[in-house]
Amino acid sequence: MRLRVIKDAANKLKEFKNFIEFKPQDNKSKWNEVFRNDNERCLEIGMGKGKFIREHAKKYRYINYLGLEISPSIVLKAARKISEDKLYNLKLINTDAANLNEIFAKGELSRIYLNFSDPWPKARHEKRRLTSDTFINIYKEILNETGVIEMKTDNRGLFEYSVVQFNKHGFMFNKLSLDLHQSLDETREIITTEYEEKFKSLGKVIYYIEVEK
Amino acid sequence: MRLRVIKDAANKLKEFKNFIEFKPQDNKSKWNEVFRNDNERCLEIGMGKGKFIREHAKKYRYINYLGLEISPSIVLKAARKISEDKLYNLKLINTDAANLNEIFAKGELSRIYLNFSDPWPKARHEKRRLTSDTFINIYKEILNETGVIEMKTDNRGLFEYSVVQFNKHGFMFNKLSLDLHQSLDETREIITTEYEEKFKSLGKVIYYIEVEK
Repeated sequence: MRLRVIKDAANKLKEFKNFIEFKPQDNKSKWNEVFRNDNERCLEIGMGKGKFIREHAKKYRYINYLGLEISPSIVLKAARKISEDKLYNLKLINTDAANLNEIFAKGELSRIYLNFSDPWPKARHEKRRLTSDTFINIYKEILNETGVIEMKTDNRGLFEYSVVQFNKHGFMFNKLSLDLHQSLDETREIITTEYEEKFKSLGKVIYYIEVEK
Repeated sequence: MRLRVIKDAANKLKEFKNFIEFKPQDNKSKWNEVFRNDNERCLEIGMGKGKFIREHAKKYRYINYLGLEISPSIVLKAARKISEDKLYNLKLINTDAANLNEIFAKGELSRIYLNFSDPWPKARHEKRRLTSDTFINIYKEILNETGVIEMKTDNRGLFEYSVVQFNKHGFMFNKLSLDLHQSLDETREIITTEYEEKFKSLGKVIYYIEVEK
């Protein structure tokens, strides 16, 4: 997600304290208190401007959503939208995904979304991919026993790599599509990201997989 | 593989008795005697006119190849080519893949090739797909302990289905490509089938996976 940097974004985030968790590590194992219910919790890593997670939160009020994003400017964009909608089942976190196991306790999440993640195509950057061994091991820890990962991407190399990785780590494949928006058996409405809308309009193929622990 | 039916093909096959095994079930657990060596044995299911398996047999003389094809007319086409080349490490079998475990003993093969198999897209035809549970269970039986399956297809639905099936049956994914002829890391020469040449020239995507027991 590329975006013009907003001046003093980190400071401006403070206006949105109802929607952003500034010390998410303090909530570890206590996310039910943060949301004030025991409903399941789903996390999008790299939420961008938040269209995908916001639309989920609006549609499924009985599910709690968490949107993680490393750039303060982008979190600010997302926070402004969320505050308009008054979505109390959605919280934003402005941090690096590498910190996830400091933020969530074992089994605290039911679902992780990876949407159009940075492909890091060079072999020497493999560790940075969100489906590298390190990250997948973190997901396995913080997901509950029937925890699910859903991934969408237009990047062939990242998808090929990720499918092999999920298989290697013993995940069960629930769904797989090599052209999501053409799959005839996909009857439910697909909630898209900003990127996805652009790619769809260009006729680009979107790869999709849902795997379960 | 569609082809004009050759009149009296089954009878004409008899001319090629050095290259076709007419009672393959009699060779079960004795394929080393048929080939007169203990070299590994690789099987292509649905070899069509045999370009792929013939080129393999020419290139890798220390490996034994078996080409299976249900249509006598097509086996005849393949046999004519093979007899020209005098390939003694290649045998053809004119039968249905459903008979495989009557032809091969446990662990008798090291590799199975599935190239451009019939996709059988309708759900009620699932059992006929060469990666249905029934077929995969046969492959697991006749493959040796480090046995490998390689699959190539241009059919998205069949490939999506097969990837999920291989994962479900506990295979390890060695290689995966969602555009075989564009994969930059594919350094070895790719031996193509007749179909593949046509699809390549049309710019169609070829999906590829190699899985291991």
